[in-house]
Amino acid sequence: MERERGPLINGGRLWTRLMALAEIGATSAGGLDRQALSDGEIAAWHRVIGWAQEAGLSAATDAAGNLFLVLAGHDRSAPPLLVGSHLDSQPTGGKFDGAAGVVAALEAAVSLAERGERPARDVIVVAWMNEEGSRFAPGMMGSEAFIGARSIDVIRQVRDASGISVGDELDRLHACFSGLPRKPLGFAVDAYLELHVEQGPLLEAEDRIIGVVTGIQGKKTFLMVVEGAEGHAGTLVQRERRDALAAFARMAAALHAEIGSIDAEIKFTIGRVLVEPNAPSVVPSRVTFSVDLRHPDNAVLGVAGTRVISLGERHAPPCAVKVTLLVDAPSNEFDALLRGRIEQAARELDLLAMPILSSAGHDARHLAKVCPSAMIFIPCRDGVSHVEHEWTEPEHVVAGASVLARVVRDLALSGRRASKACGDRNV
Amino acid sequence: MERERGPLINGGRLWTRLMALAEIGATSAGGLDRQALSDGEIAAWHRVIGWAQEAGLSAATDAAGNLFLVLAGHDRSAPPLLVGSHLDSQPTGGKFDGAAGVVAALEAAVSLAERGERPARDVIVVAWMNEEGSRFAPGMMGSEAFIGARSIDVIRQVRDASGISVGDELDRLHACFSGLPRKPLGFAVDAYLELHVEQGPLLEAEDRIIGVVTGIQGKKTFLMVVEGAEGHAGTLVQRERRDALAAFARMAAALHAEIGSIDAEIKFTIGRVLVEPNAPSVVPSRVTFSVDLRHPDNAVLGVAGTRVISLGERHAPPCAVKVTLLVDAPSNEFDALLRGRIEQAARELDLLAMPILSSAGHDARHLAKVCPSAMIFIPCRDGVSHVEHEWTEPEHVVAGASVLARVVRDLALSGRRASKACGDRNV
Repeated sequence: MERERGPLINGGRLWTRLMALAEIGATSAGGLDRQALSDGEIAAWHRVIGWAQEAGLSAATDAAGNLFLVLAGHDRSAPPLLVGSHLDSQPTGGKFDGAAGVVAALEAAVSLAERGERPARDVIVVAWMNEEGSRFAPGMMGSEAFIGARSIDVIRQVRDASGISVGDELDRLHACFSGLPRKPLGFAVDAYLELHVEQGPLLEAEDRIIGVVTGIQGKKTFLMVVEGAEGHAGTLVQRERRDALAAFARMAAALHAEIGSIDAEIKFTIGRVLVEPNAPSVVPSRVTFSVDLRHPDNAVLGVAGTRVISLGERHAPPCAVKVTLLVDAPSNEFDALLRGRIEQAARELDLLAMPILSSAGHDARHLAKVCPSAMIFIPCRDGVSHVEHEWTEPEHVVAGASVLARVVRDLALSGRRASKACGDRNV
Repeated sequence: MERERGPLINGGRLWTRLMALAEIGATSAGGLDRQALSDGEIAAWHRVIGWAQEAGLSAATDAAGNLFLVLAGHDRSAPPLLVGSHLDSQPTGGKFDGAAGVVAALEAAVSLAERGERPARDVIVVAWMNEEGSRFAPGMMGSEAFIGARSIDVIRQVRDASGISVGDELDRLHACFSGLPRKPLGFAVDAYLELHVEQGPLLEAEDRIIGVVTGIQGKKTFLMVVEGAEGHAGTLVQRERRDALAAFARMAAALHAEIGSIDAEIKFTIGRVLVEPNAPSVVPSRVTFSVDLRHPDNAVLGVAGTRVISLGERHAPPCAVKVTLLVDAPSNEFDALLRGRIEQAARELDLLAMPILSSAGHDARHLAKVCPSAMIFIPCRDGVSHVEHEWTEPEHVVAGASVLARVVRDLALSGRRASKACGDRNV
């Protein structure tokens, strides 16, 4: 296999496509509201499938609503190389989180096809279902179902705030794309690669363009439900109230004050709160809220998780609290040999790279459990993501996609299994 | 005018109608979700208009979406006697709050008509628009517009959580009832009477059936908006966050702890909270919440109101807080001579009555500013209201309606103006 010197991709097309995709679900403030399994995500599927089919790739889906765009290799039965990210966004998200990784993966595969370089095995671009978890919690449902960590039957039961289930929306998605073949859920994969915006300030601070992701910090998420009793705001005397909002306020204030003091690096967020019945003159009967807890050290994460539960229970009376652990993901480390290939590709393109820990969760966390996996980070302005003004410079998107395309080409054109090439990892 | 000894009304029909009305907007838990200007309220209008027209009353509305059912008197130009309450409910409200007062008023008027006793002046049954204020805040919009305390143009701009305005919904209501004549907003009224469930435990505790309401405790409501900055829950470090939920939690915990300690009788409620963007892995940028504050003593209410603002400002940093006073209603006293007539009617019917202060707000608070006004309370089980299991015994509803009907008949058949009969109140 010859070493190519160029970027291997069409950077102008890549950027144009990313901006075209950002028109679907665009908000007036320049961001995206394209939540999982929404009309917007269906429209985004139509657009990327069109681009893939133009280049001779074929599209497929699976029972979990993951989208696959397949560049056929010589050996169709060999485990494919999977490359991608997600197309869904937060309700007030940005243009790059997720979409950049899908468009970059597609550009890598399309460029290979255009150059007539048929890979040894299939190269499959993937867009995972519901990475964000804002509409249906928790996120990363598509990859979680794909690796078999959670049953698709259980996932289908999850409902959004308006009562619509994942199952209903999956059926709608499949009806919209009834012509697509259905791949089995969780087929064997040779390796997984994902490009993503950093969603933090480190690359920018260090003036680097490529982040070679070492791993993902650990995360625990909880669903907490405070149960009190409804009453009239004007007539029920204070001492006889079981006010769920008052109990929530004590809990939330104590959690914010105490969890942060465990360790300076800890990240603690109450991002979602639902009050019932949520009327100004009714004492609230129930408050449901999310807790998101992250730290690179699994021991610290364990201590903080225990504290969340104990503070909830301490401040609940006279109400009751029910705590459910939704996500318990320890910190992980990505494949060393794939990381080496990313570093090498960046060097070959004269791009400044650095190792970096991911503070955010990604689908690669799940894939890393079943195959060698790695991630490439590119900068985002001021380190902010999950906001409508999220921004990455065009040249940084192109640089990251060029690194990705080199690694994809190296792995795709080699007849050896990536898992073998990367060492004897047990797949 | 002869003194009638009987109850003057058809108690069976009254109860049957109240239960029929409770089918419209019924919840599975036996309560009502019939919020202001909803499809349910429109259906309730159709039903009560039908009952009124059967008895020869005519229906009308006004620019504020108040419903009037008119029993014509001898002197059509004289200021009418107004009797009623409201047909809207809380999102998880009960069958009696509001509806009992409208059905009782209708029963009083229909009974007069059936007995062929033509009143000296018009008797008008009224259902005020949006008493509850749960969908469109604050409540008592219809009576507030009627007395001219707030412009209907301003009221029309208020929007519900889904962005629909009062104006849009008023236009829809008027289109549904395009055949109804439109009365001028705020016509002259001779006197106002309202029957309502107590929404408190006092009548039950004292074993009384009729509450002669002395007045309504004072109320202040605030809309508070905490402004922070959105960010990614996994990447934005704690010290750089301006987390609107964290600031809200400190405020709400402090408000609950400190406002209650000002005075044992104070009622303090945070009933409605909206978090934005309300996603588990996004640091909240904005929290909007309601504060409801009540006390019979206007001085205590003033101190508490000042404290709400200062605690909000103290706990906001690094976020900002904006506080808007939505309702500032001092405690009031109802007309002494009308209260005397209610006591006398209860005595004539051998019903145990007691004077009682209303802890909840009612449309009568507004009407009392423009004409002699009074209220009759009937018990509600365990003193609870604004809940789906709200309950009043049939015999208590009939007893209250019988007292109301006697007072209505006394005032209606007398040629004298109630305002004169009740003393030289300046209307």
